[in-house]
Amino acid sequence: MRVTIKDIAKMADVSPSAVSLVLNDRPCRVSEEKKATIKRIAKEYNYAANQIARSLVTRKSKTIGLLIPDIENIFFSSLAKHIEERCRQKGYMLIIVNSDNKYKHDLELLELLKSRSIDGLFLIPSDESYENNTELINQLRNLDNAKFPYVMIDRIFSEHPCNKVWFDNEEGANLAVSHLLESGHQKIACIANSSDSLNGKSRLTGYYRAMEKYNCEINPEFVIEGDYRMDSGFRAGKKLLNQDISAVFVTNDMMALGLLKAVYEKNMQVPNDISIISYDNTINSYIFGVELTAIEQDVCSLSNHAVRLLFSQLEKENKIPEEICLIPKLIKNTSVLTVRQ
Amino acid sequence: MRVTIKDIAKMADVSPSAVSLVLNDRPCRVSEEKKATIKRIAKEYNYAANQIARSLVTRKSKTIGLLIPDIENIFFSSLAKHIEERCRQKGYMLIIVNSDNKYKHDLELLELLKSRSIDGLFLIPSDESYENNTELINQLRNLDNAKFPYVMIDRIFSEHPCNKVWFDNEEGANLAVSHLLESGHQKIACIANSSDSLNGKSRLTGYYRAMEKYNCEINPEFVIEGDYRMDSGFRAGKKLLNQDISAVFVTNDMMALGLLKAVYEKNMQVPNDISIISYDNTINSYIFGVELTAIEQDVCSLSNHAVRLLFSQLEKENKIPEEICLIPKLIKNTSVLTVRQ
Repeated sequence: MRVTIKDIAKMADVSPSAVSLVLNDRPCRVSEEKKATIKRIAKEYNYAANQIARSLVTRKSKTIGLLIPDIENIFFSSLAKHIEERCRQKGYMLIIVNSDNKYKHDLELLELLKSRSIDGLFLIPSDESYENNTELINQLRNLDNAKFPYVMIDRIFSEHPCNKVWFDNEEGANLAVSHLLESGHQKIACIANSSDSLNGKSRLTGYYRAMEKYNCEINPEFVIEGDYRMDSGFRAGKKLLNQDISAVFVTNDMMALGLLKAVYEKNMQVPNDISIISYDNTINSYIFGVELTAIEQDVCSLSNHAVRLLFSQLEKENKIPEEICLIPKLIKNTSVLTVRQ
Repeated sequence: MRVTIKDIAKMADVSPSAVSLVLNDRPCRVSEEKKATIKRIAKEYNYAANQIARSLVTRKSKTIGLLIPDIENIFFSSLAKHIEERCRQKGYMLIIVNSDNKYKHDLELLELLKSRSIDGLFLIPSDESYENNTELINQLRNLDNAKFPYVMIDRIFSEHPCNKVWFDNEEGANLAVSHLLESGHQKIACIANSSDSLNGKSRLTGYYRAMEKYNCEINPEFVIEGDYRMDSGFRAGKKLLNQDISAVFVTNDMMALGLLKAVYEKNMQVPNDISIISYDNTINSYIFGVELTAIEQDVCSLSNHAVRLLFSQLEKENKIPEEICLIPKLIKNTSVLTVRQ
């Protein structure tokens, strides 16, 4: 049986991270005597240093890992494709793992990637990780200690300093709702996803911020929770279209598709009967007869920044982490009616 | 620097696969003397057996690799998700790599996966591999020699015997076009993709087969090449809708979306002005006002078979490879008009 870092740690009565540091000849607070013991055990049991350790001291693996929450979501698969292209241009290959948006899988897959010889890591954690991220942050600190390059993308932990690139979701929603308000709308509904998603929560906050800025009363019945899937947008639409509203801010494109289906079934017209503004700007090529005004998150810019951050840390071990917050753009199309006041 | 199997092969003047077999104590036609030389060199240079070799003789990695051609294509991302779920249920994790439909990347990524400690592999090669697959088939033969479990999915090499699961694309197209013919249509156009894709070529063959079976004349102007992308379907639609046709068989859903856009722009109605039958059956939730009749390839069934084949080989090393050809289904909806004859 192959001996692991954990086995050696147990035998030497030290932590696994101490074993890793000692075997990689990195500075650490371990006595010379203990260091000798660890090295002796490793040799005795013919410990093959794991691939990360080996790539640090010897040959680079020229491979990067990417952890994404949902491979079927077009935003993440498009991000994966962009990142892969950029990495390939730099002579690196990309290994992708999918957490299915489960925190348990974040932890398992991070361990998996670390044991599979990667030189760096892009990380988009599960939504669940926002509720309890202690163990994940511990793992990230271990990476920091090993000076292992990684970048958090799109979903970040504000309390953990590291390389990060993300979009300002609150500002995106504020841009969207302010545009509706400036076009003369006041009775504005919102299809949100504030319970499952931190980014969704920020978008709802942006809606409230804009409504308050313009002194618009918020009717609680105008705010309906969805789950970012089409069906929930359709159900929300069925409820909202019976209410006295003139516009809807939908916090993602899939729910906007559902809303459009409800609008279609009710024989209503966009924007004459109802104005709609969406988030993502990914579906206009799939729909006919209306072009949605939407908030766009530029995946290309997001991946370019992420790749730049990772490679600058790969090239310079002691580089100070950077945090980059991107502002999404309002893309004006034909789904918002200007109302005379 | 770490010594590789290739380095050892050079030094011992044998093939890399001989080195691999010897170091894994597998039967091979290498003299005892040569075997000793190989083992001595490996020891001398402190050769750490690569992860595949190690997992064969020691600990299983509980990881499976998946090579897909296009992560942004909903068929492959959905397949990846299904396979991952099934593997996870069995206690295995999945590593995904994306070839961007390039043969060069097939070869590189297969090497990458083999060096990263996987117990088995799912493989969907690039379309380019159909033109020249000698090197890839050699790599697959190496896997066969090492009794390494793998399954080809969706795109297969008929000349290479191994575990395979795929859909009968010719029969799918035949089903679609026969349905149009049985509904009374005769002037049937086809938006094909026979130049880039082997599966696309089979679908066009199925169209011809059905037309000939019903003694329908084929007008070459009714067959237009696309590239499976929406724009090409739109452009084909603009040409076809000016012709004297009553129905179109579109060989994938993305091109059907493009065709629908052309229909919409011309103020035509489906199915009253034009009947449409598509391939994939993935877009009905995204479109309004019409439900497309389409050929469905059941991704769930495809992934279940693939996972079953791989795991039965994982459990029983000498299992004989199985080849499973699935027949796609015709899903009837409202986009085909029955014409009185």
